[in-house]
Amino acid sequence: MTPDDADAPEEVMWAGRFITAKRRGKWEYVGRARGIRAAVILPLDGDHVILVEQYRVPLGCNCLELPAGLIGDEDGAENEDPLEAARRELIEETGYSAARWENLGVYFSSPGMVSESFTLLRASELTKVGEGGGVEDEEIVVHRVNRANLEQFIADARARGVAVDVKMLLLLGAGMGGIKV
Amino acid sequence: MTPDDADAPEEVMWAGRFITAKRRGKWEYVGRARGIRAAVILPLDGDHVILVEQYRVPLGCNCLELPAGLIGDEDGAENEDPLEAARRELIEETGYSAARWENLGVYFSSPGMVSESFTLLRASELTKVGEGGGVEDEEIVVHRVNRANLEQFIADARARGVAVDVKMLLLLGAGMGGIKV
Repeated sequence: MTPDDADAPEEVMWAGRFITAKRRGKWEYVGRARGIRAAVILPLDGDHVILVEQYRVPLGCNCLELPAGLIGDEDGAENEDPLEAARRELIEETGYSAARWENLGVYFSSPGMVSESFTLLRASELTKVGEGGGVEDEEIVVHRVNRANLEQFIADARARGVAVDVKMLLLLGAGMGGIKV
Repeated sequence: MTPDDADAPEEVMWAGRFITAKRRGKWEYVGRARGIRAAVILPLDGDHVILVEQYRVPLGCNCLELPAGLIGDEDGAENEDPLEAARRELIEETGYSAARWENLGVYFSSPGMVSESFTLLRASELTKVGEGGGVEDEEIVVHRVNRANLEQFIADARARGVAVDVKMLLLLGAGMGGIKV
């Protein structure tokens, strides 16, 4: 059961260095360029979770997120192993090394307008091995948050003007507090 | 603490009818066009959740998702109320009407490459008022799933070749089963 547009030709409308804008029939969407893939990490440290906050140019503000990284985005690294990339990113961004890694599957961020997916990895048995903060011009703030206080932590971040990544829903859960409308 | 590129001029690289590809310094990203916004719905029916499955042209396959809709995407509907749009979409897509609605906040789907956000609404006290399935050429399959069986339901969907939307993480939770790597 596919809409008519499924068989329309795919046209590249703009090809950048990192993303490609495409059109197929009436559908418009974006994909990553050059086979770049993404890994997202859920770092659990007992009752705590390790989160990162960084300025996001597309949003024009800071955003609260799970640590994540692109795989194969640097020249010569096209065949980088996803787990090796995730180990490197977790240490670079948060300063934590994990002894246990689990694959939680592949997810699509915005199926109506983005063709790309990411692999979610759960990292546990953490050891602090550095300060984190990212590389070069990245200025990543690391938060170690008690999961029992996560809703309040996120509310406080929103009050500071910080955006919240959809992947925080993994930690908030379907029973989170809401405002009746 | 903002990277240098935050103050670079924003250039429109391609403007489609639904999305706009932009560049600011070395950052490339996409936004929705014409002020279009999105509402995503978490419909809870006691121990069950109502999910939708539909063919997604950007993915080239079916995707398992929460019901969702665009607000203000039709000519003359630019000022549509988000709650009214969500009520309409829930009935159109799933056939359920909800007596209770709660706002669970605004989330960003992919802060590194998409500038847009969505509002998450929890819908409960459901009544079946129609068959759902969507409008016009939409062919949406409705699934009413016991939340206790959700991990297995998603594994079975993956085995059928169905993609999984990131927003399913809200229901799966940080303790979901994983494969050691």
